[in-house]
Amino acid sequence: MPRKVDHEQRRRRIAQAVWAIVALRGLEAVSLRDVAAEAGVSLGQVQHYFKTKDQVLRYAGQRLVELAGEELRRSLAARPEPPSPRATIRAVAEQTVPATPERRAGAAVWYAFVTRAVTAPELAALIADAWAGTHVLIGDELRAAQQVGELDARLDPAALAATLQTVIDGLVPQVLVGYRTPAEALSVVDHHLDLLFGPAR
Amino acid sequence: MPRKVDHEQRRRRIAQAVWAIVALRGLEAVSLRDVAAEAGVSLGQVQHYFKTKDQVLRYAGQRLVELAGEELRRSLAARPEPPSPRATIRAVAEQTVPATPERRAGAAVWYAFVTRAVTAPELAALIADAWAGTHVLIGDELRAAQQVGELDARLDPAALAATLQTVIDGLVPQVLVGYRTPAEALSVVDHHLDLLFGPAR
Repeated sequence: MPRKVDHEQRRRRIAQAVWAIVALRGLEAVSLRDVAAEAGVSLGQVQHYFKTKDQVLRYAGQRLVELAGEELRRSLAARPEPPSPRATIRAVAEQTVPATPERRAGAAVWYAFVTRAVTAPELAALIADAWAGTHVLIGDELRAAQQVGELDARLDPAALAATLQTVIDGLVPQVLVGYRTPAEALSVVDHHLDLLFGPAR
Repeated sequence: MPRKVDHEQRRRRIAQAVWAIVALRGLEAVSLRDVAAEAGVSLGQVQHYFKTKDQVLRYAGQRLVELAGEELRRSLAARPEPPSPRATIRAVAEQTVPATPERRAGAAVWYAFVTRAVTAPELAALIADAWAGTHVLIGDELRAAQQVGELDARLDPAALAATLQTVIDGLVPQVLVGYRTPAEALSVVDHHLDLLFGPAR
């Protein structure tokens, strides 16, 4: 009797194959045929889940966003005590700024998705959702900081969150291109957090 | 007698051809042959100036940076009175955030260069020089603002300039992807400038 196929597992393997192709040859090089070969499955098996290149790209991009969210939650949950709002925002920056070869590969793939989204509306919605998610998360943390008196209550948390999110995302190409080291990039974030919260204790 | 060739003009026409190809088909699609066809010159004429794809890309990228600098200087010089440091920084943001179809095309081409620079060291130096130029310009304006008492003298202008430059550049993909309108992007900059300088008068 054939083993029951784990569809979720196979879809994830297909997403990994897409990332590998994008990392090595760029997003334009992705084809369903090459994705199948990279994933070690048949073209028909890929087509069972994804009819078009755009569909498989969108799924691979969504998985990147999901994985980043899971990783952030895990890293925050692993701390001995609940992190402060400021520490949570710093954790978002640490997770976004690519400091290891794995993170760098992930960031480069994500960056390729953003570039493609300039001309691909379906990917644009995915990217916008991811940005909006980060914006809401940071805004909530800033509001929480205001409630406990760590941040000036007269400041506008939504506007501050927009700047913070833009700074954090804007540092990614700077690190990928080698303009700043990951440590230098995080010090830009720290300096900005100092400006908002006062120097870190 | 043949007309003397204007080499500078021809090189500029070649740069424009590169931009057109990048805008329509992406940076990977650039070949010396296609650049020649797009520029309406022979392959040999292109090769007279540029031996490789990387060389012509670097020149086309450098021209983008030069043009942006010229345009900024022109727009500042055209003002009835010398702009304040804050107004100069705002002008950098206005020039970077793509608000017209022409600017949008230029920004998308520049963004393609940044993406390629992740794996192309020769382009990385060009991108890094451009970023460093903006960083120095903004830092100088912040120092000037401190000297005339418009900005708190205790703040670190180099660190503030790093954040400002990152915000301004980080807004470009947000506008290209349609996450923010150009006006919304500039309001992120204005809000941040308000934070530094106090509300605009």
